[in-house]
Amino acid sequence: MIDFATLAAEYRQVRARTEKLCAPLEAEDYSLQVAPFVSPPKWHLAHVTWFFERFLLQPFLPDYQVFDSAFDHLFNSYYLQIGKPFPRAHRGWLSRPAVARIQDYRAAVDAAMTRLLNNPPRDAGPTIGFRVELGLHHEQQHQELLLMDLKYSFAQNPIDPIYQPIATTPTGTAKAMQLVSFEGGLCEVGHPGTAFCFDNETPRHRVFLKPYRLADRLVNHGDFQNFIDDGGYHNSAFWLSDGWSWLQATQRRRPEYYRDEGEFTLHGLLRRDPAAPIAHLTYYEADAYARWAEKRLPTEFEWEHAAAQQADQAQDGPFQLHPGPPAPHTAPLAQMHGVLWQWTASPYLAYPGYTPFAGAVGEYNGKFMCNQMVLRGGCCITPPGHLRHTYRNFFYPDQSWAFCGLRLAEDG
Amino acid sequence: MIDFATLAAEYRQVRARTEKLCAPLEAEDYSLQVAPFVSPPKWHLAHVTWFFERFLLQPFLPDYQVFDSAFDHLFNSYYLQIGKPFPRAHRGWLSRPAVARIQDYRAAVDAAMTRLLNNPPRDAGPTIGFRVELGLHHEQQHQELLLMDLKYSFAQNPIDPIYQPIATTPTGTAKAMQLVSFEGGLCEVGHPGTAFCFDNETPRHRVFLKPYRLADRLVNHGDFQNFIDDGGYHNSAFWLSDGWSWLQATQRRRPEYYRDEGEFTLHGLLRRDPAAPIAHLTYYEADAYARWAEKRLPTEFEWEHAAAQQADQAQDGPFQLHPGPPAPHTAPLAQMHGVLWQWTASPYLAYPGYTPFAGAVGEYNGKFMCNQMVLRGGCCITPPGHLRHTYRNFFYPDQSWAFCGLRLAEDG
Amino acid sequence: MIDFATLAAEYRQVRARTEKLCAPLEAEDYSLQVAPFVSPPKWHLAHVTWFFERFLLQPFLPDYQVFDSAFDHLFNSYYLQIGKPFPRAHRGWLSRPAVARIQDYRAAVDAAMTRLLNNPPRDAGPTIGFRVELGLHHEQQHQELLLMDLKYSFAQNPIDPIYQPIATTPTGTAKAMQLVSFEGGLCEVGHPGTAFCFDNETPRHRVFLKPYRLADRLVNHGDFQNFIDDGGYHNSAFWLSDGWSWLQATQRRRPEYYRDEGEFTLHGLLRRDPAAPIAHLTYYEADAYARWAEKRLPTEFEWEHAAAQQADQAQDGPFQLHPGPPAPHTAPLAQMHGVLWQWTASPYLAYPGYTPFAGAVGEYNGKFMCNQMVLRGGCCITPPGHLRHTYRNFFYPDQSWAFCGLRLAEDG
Amino acid sequence: MIDFATLAAEYRQVRARTEKLCAPLEAEDYSLQVAPFVSPPKWHLAHVTWFFERFLLQPFLPDYQVFDSAFDHLFNSYYLQIGKPFPRAHRGWLSRPAVARIQDYRAAVDAAMTRLLNNPPRDAGPTIGFRVELGLHHEQQHQELLLMDLKYSFAQNPIDPIYQPIATTPTGTAKAMQLVSFEGGLCEVGHPGTAFCFDNETPRHRVFLKPYRLADRLVNHGDFQNFIDDGGYHNSAFWLSDGWSWLQATQRRRPEYYRDEGEFTLHGLLRRDPAAPIAHLTYYEADAYARWAEKRLPTEFEWEHAAAQQADQAQDGPFQLHPGPPAPHTAPLAQMHGVLWQWTASPYLAYPGYTPFAGAVGEYNGKFMCNQMVLRGGCCITPPGHLRHTYRNFFYPDQSWAFCGLRLAEDG
Repeated sequence: MIDFATLAAEYRQVRARTEKLCAPLEAEDYSLQVAPFVSPPKWHLAHVTWFFERFLLQPFLPDYQVFDSAFDHLFNSYYLQIGKPFPRAHRGWLSRPAVARIQDYRAAVDAAMTRLLNNPPRDAGPTIGFRVELGLHHEQQHQELLLMDLKYSFAQNPIDPIYQPIATTPTGTAKAMQLVSFEGGLCEVGHPGTAFCFDNETPRHRVFLKPYRLADRLVNHGDFQNFIDDGGYHNSAFWLSDGWSWLQATQRRRPEYYRDEGEFTLHGLLRRDPAAPIAHLTYYEADAYARWAEKRLPTEFEWEHAAAQQADQAQDGPFQLHPGPPAPHTAPLAQMHGVLWQWTASPYLAYPGYTPFAGAVGEYNGKFMCNQMVLRGGCCITPPGHLRHTYRNFFYPDQSWAFCGLRLAEDG
Repeated sequence: MIDFATLAAEYRQVRARTEKLCAPLEAEDYSLQVAPFVSPPKWHLAHVTWFFERFLLQPFLPDYQVFDSAFDHLFNSYYLQIGKPFPRAHRGWLSRPAVARIQDYRAAVDAAMTRLLNNPPRDAGPTIGFRVELGLHHEQQHQELLLMDLKYSFAQNPIDPIYQPIATTPTGTAKAMQLVSFEGGLCEVGHPGTAFCFDNETPRHRVFLKPYRLADRLVNHGDFQNFIDDGGYHNSAFWLSDGWSWLQATQRRRPEYYRDEGEFTLHGLLRRDPAAPIAHLTYYEADAYARWAEKRLPTEFEWEHAAAQQADQAQDGPFQLHPGPPAPHTAPLAQMHGVLWQWTASPYLAYPGYTPFAGAVGEYNGKFMCNQMVLRGGCCITPPGHLRHTYRNFFYPDQSWAFCGLRLAEDG
Repeated sequence: MIDFATLAAEYRQVRARTEKLCAPLEAEDYSLQVAPFVSPPKWHLAHVTWFFERFLLQPFLPDYQVFDSAFDHLFNSYYLQIGKPFPRAHRGWLSRPAVARIQDYRAAVDAAMTRLLNNPPRDAGPTIGFRVELGLHHEQQHQELLLMDLKYSFAQNPIDPIYQPIATTPTGTAKAMQLVSFEGGLCEVGHPGTAFCFDNETPRHRVFLKPYRLADRLVNHGDFQNFIDDGGYHNSAFWLSDGWSWLQATQRRRPEYYRDEGEFTLHGLLRRDPAAPIAHLTYYEADAYARWAEKRLPTEFEWEHAAAQQADQAQDGPFQLHPGPPAPHTAPLAQMHGVLWQWTASPYLAYPGYTPFAGAVGEYNGKFMCNQMVLRGGCCITPPGHLRHTYRNFFYPDQSWAFCGLRLAEDG
Repeated sequence: MIDFATLAAEYRQVRARTEKLCAPLEAEDYSLQVAPFVSPPKWHLAHVTWFFERFLLQPFLPDYQVFDSAFDHLFNSYYLQIGKPFPRAHRGWLSRPAVARIQDYRAAVDAAMTRLLNNPPRDAGPTIGFRVELGLHHEQQHQELLLMDLKYSFAQNPIDPIYQPIATTPTGTAKAMQLVSFEGGLCEVGHPGTAFCFDNETPRHRVFLKPYRLADRLVNHGDFQNFIDDGGYHNSAFWLSDGWSWLQATQRRRPEYYRDEGEFTLHGLLRRDPAAPIAHLTYYEADAYARWAEKRLPTEFEWEHAAAQQADQAQDGPFQLHPGPPAPHTAPLAQMHGVLWQWTASPYLAYPGYTPFAGAVGEYNGKFMCNQMVLRGGCCITPPGHLRHTYRNFFYPDQSWAFCGLRLAEDG
């Protein structure tokens, strides 16, 4: 039995958080898109709203009038089964509709959603409940994307725009890395219960793991500087063949946001703290680092098996928008959740027996199960309450604009 | 002896017109850039201002403080001899500085320019006078570019944004085209007097012209539709080799802004008037049309020689932002000035004995004298007072976002 | 204790087969390269020879004189740790050294190898034995590549060159596909014994398999035509997101070598036999077909587990260079080996505890363990004796010039 | 009245010279193509033959049987009005038909041409005479192209293939450059008489030239080294805007065939003689050099006007395949003909009143009259007897694989 009052409250809370994230923006920032893989803030604002309009208001709210018939084309992301989306690479071309009109759109959809949730059609209750929950998780994903995208776009501007100023930056000292042993064996992985999770976390199933060891903290700037200083970016022996080709093509010689003077962040240009975990590595860089360190990346199941054995931790460090050095902790594995997404050695695949969500919303996770790698653990800009230790994020191995770092592993 | 009071008045007038052109824009429009060859409105606003700051205030106004040291990099266009410009293709990435800051920049430079023009250093008077005049002509060029660029950018948006609404569209009927004969012979071309002109219009010199005939009006939509209907876009016989390659590469099958339902304009989507001149052709299309019509394009000297023989006319038709059908006229050649730039058969080259303007401002016209074709006659969005019949505009043969049309010619 | 006399006989046999494969070639064919991913026959001939010179003669044959010092650069493929290879995409640019000189190179290396194998240095015996075996397997791989590459290159020539004429083409009728059940459970996979295998087949390890079913034959042209006729290439619902993008980019609307009139083969243009297995699909097409058929691709471990339970079969059908319809058989699963490589749902990854071969020859398999998918089973042009049921081939999901087909699977 | 016996003798002579040029080639060289703008030798051999078959044998020799119907597609270059040519960029893909078959093709066409010229149909005599002459000039053009293309292709091979060995290289000393004055005025240019010339050399017409001066020799390696040493490749002030962009895109820092150790030639790698003229410059480099030298390039009419005033000279220097230092001479202008094509400041345009050759052979020169620059004077590999001082060659400003150099000019 769904509690629609609670759901309506959650709806208001998630929607309000999105708008709060936009408060520091200038009007021109809302249309900013510097690469095909990032979207302008305005587009995120409209797209998550379109999700509710298209999958809830249109099918379930009697007499609902579509806000603007052009939006179905403009703000569909990739649901090919329900239309032809406007090309992703050109979202920045849409200076119109202006922000004010998008805000009107949000208000109109919120008002209609309130009406729907106050009085849901009886027989559609479970579907509505599920889709609202899905829509809110979807909006939370876009909250994280909005910040990732904005960071990437701002980073291309030579005047180093600041999204949110920061008074002081915390410092810390890094402990030497320790490896914690796990037995492995025939283990269960995947989401166990009936609470909400994405389809790609199911079904729960058995995998056989050999004994392994996992680092008790993330690799940090100090560690990575040793790799750079040792010529890591110039020695093919450490790199996958595709990684080496990527290196030649991009001439990358240091991580994405490194600057001579420090590191570009959502707080502007900051100095690099050797004790803080290194972020914004591609899979290729993470893998090369691990080989250089004579270790390897963990599989996603090794990661999950270990994470399941310790209580979830609050995020280490005091920043919200940039990972700081680790806070004191007692759990055997620090920085497992809410610091940085952690590249695993596992390609993003369906679990045995996987079934996508039913209907058009099922065009969500399954069709991306090729050529991407799984990351685990969430990051400092992941919205509160959005994460699970069975949560699977995924990116292509040459992408680094997510807040992604790495944790080392080795055979036990 | 320069009249600095008049110059100051001209300065205020030109600068004010730029701002008036921006009045219909939304904040997001100011950063809009959909292709490397167009610039965002905000960039135009700042760049023309930078020209005055860099070439007048910095060298000539004592104690002038640069407004923002980052702007030299951001708003230099292509003056390689005075720094490294921010890449043209990425001007749309500069969501910051915001419009408000650019407006402050304009105000600060205007105030300083007023001080300078009120009290010009005695010995620099002629240089200052020349550079102000150059800067104002430069700003007028960017007024036209701003509208061209905006039209091109708006045209990529499926919701067909309207820059300026229009109540009614004028109609007219086209006269049959007549060819007017000219004797030619050993003629003088180029700018004759001492009034301001660009360096590329000089020196005045002799060319030998054989007798020729020039059409008494521009080619119009009705004419061009016949070319399309006759399979003109599918018959290689009419096309230059490079034009045919361009056609295969772009799959262009009709002019740039043609839509099934009409034509995209700064007034939004309008129906096409058969009597109105066709605009936004590439050189390749103009040349193919001329071959299909068993005529040719005039050379720039044929055009100038003819234009010199008739009084300059006001623009035909009532629109300001889109060319309408021709108004009644008595001159032998209609639509010579202020309707559409007219492609000529002449590559853009230096006149014999050409000397660029002295100093860094000389990096202006000469370095573009390769691979481009000359257009003559101005267009409906060319600022009033900016044009001369010796004026040489130039674009690459595959470009069509300028307001460019064509007039036929043949041997006499 | 290595039997060097037997090894020398194997050496002669494998080397002779390579030359026999080249017998039908014209001189100009030896330099032919139509895409970066194929190599000219001449390059294959030289590269496999260079392998023996570089890894055996240079280190182990006293007083060996390098045949031509330029060859180390020209004919190294990708061993970055021992030099800078000539760019792969440009191998077709090497009209010199001419074929005759490459044949001299082969003869000189063969003579030296005979000397080495007749009198191997005592203490290096095991290393030499291993490397010769590796070199011969390597040459066999290039025998298959040479034919794949030649087919692809010939296919771009509008006159449809014939590598080997064929008198009659066999026909057959296809049985309806049946699914055979397997229990799964905790199974061992990977190469078990001490006989030669590639490093990527080891170590043998345990995986947990749920019950599954495997089709008793490959998908054939008749089956695939139903997919095409049902609009399979036009319905995004069947395609991975990357597959759909690939489809838009390439405009592929039928398999690689389909022609209106039939199918391009090494025997020239042949009609398509509905009962013969379909070849030259990309992973994207194989996966889309499986979804359309409401089945899935097997994992590589499901395939291996099933293959391990039946005796290896000879190749079905009478062709050597093109797969024919299935011959009568009694094993539960037909066409498992030597017909077509079969795409699996498994990305190409290291087995747990994987260790590359020692030394520079270890730069062989491991560095490709990213972005590629595993294929199993060999194909009709795989050299005799080269295959094992633990053998792992791998290609990118958008590649189809290998002889690759598919077998369906489903959950048990 | 055409002398067909003489024409037949000329035919044999020109055709034989083509084959002699191929004598040094290996079989694999015949298919070599390393860039879209060069063609394999085999293609040249077949294409010039196809010209005779298509434009002479098919229309005029009764009962002529086409040699191979596939050749019309394969060996048409760009005559769009008579079919769809095989893509130029892929000519190297045609390993078949093999060289032997192309030689059979040449022999068959030669035999048929002999029959035709022995007994030309009476009423078609003038057309046949003209087309044979055109076909022979066309074949001579391809003789030059064949060597240009081969040089470019060989230059990409790290083993520096030698087309023709050379015993000793001549040396010389360069005189200081002198400028020779010309009056100009109203001059006649273009081909005057009735002897064969290409359509683009006509009609003869008047141009007005201001007084000018022309250098008495070509720019040589010694001169050009001063430009390099002075940072010429790093100073934007010397470069056209498009030239500077080309420089950034290609990272060119020295002329095409410069090597650390010397210069790549058809005689292999030679040392650079400071007194020998510099070859293989792009227009951009030639123009930049001229600006650096505070001179300019001559127009094509200045060049022709000067050339008309001095007797044509034999080529200076003893090489046939590479330009040597100037021989002693008495004419005021050395190295005018047969040394290097000389870039002019003139875009390639139609002369006033230009009419292309009639029929499909008219698709020859006119359609290239856009975006290219005129070169004058022929070069050391231009076939004997092929040149005239009214001859107009043309290339794009970024091309340098022709044997092209420069001569300086200035206003008189």
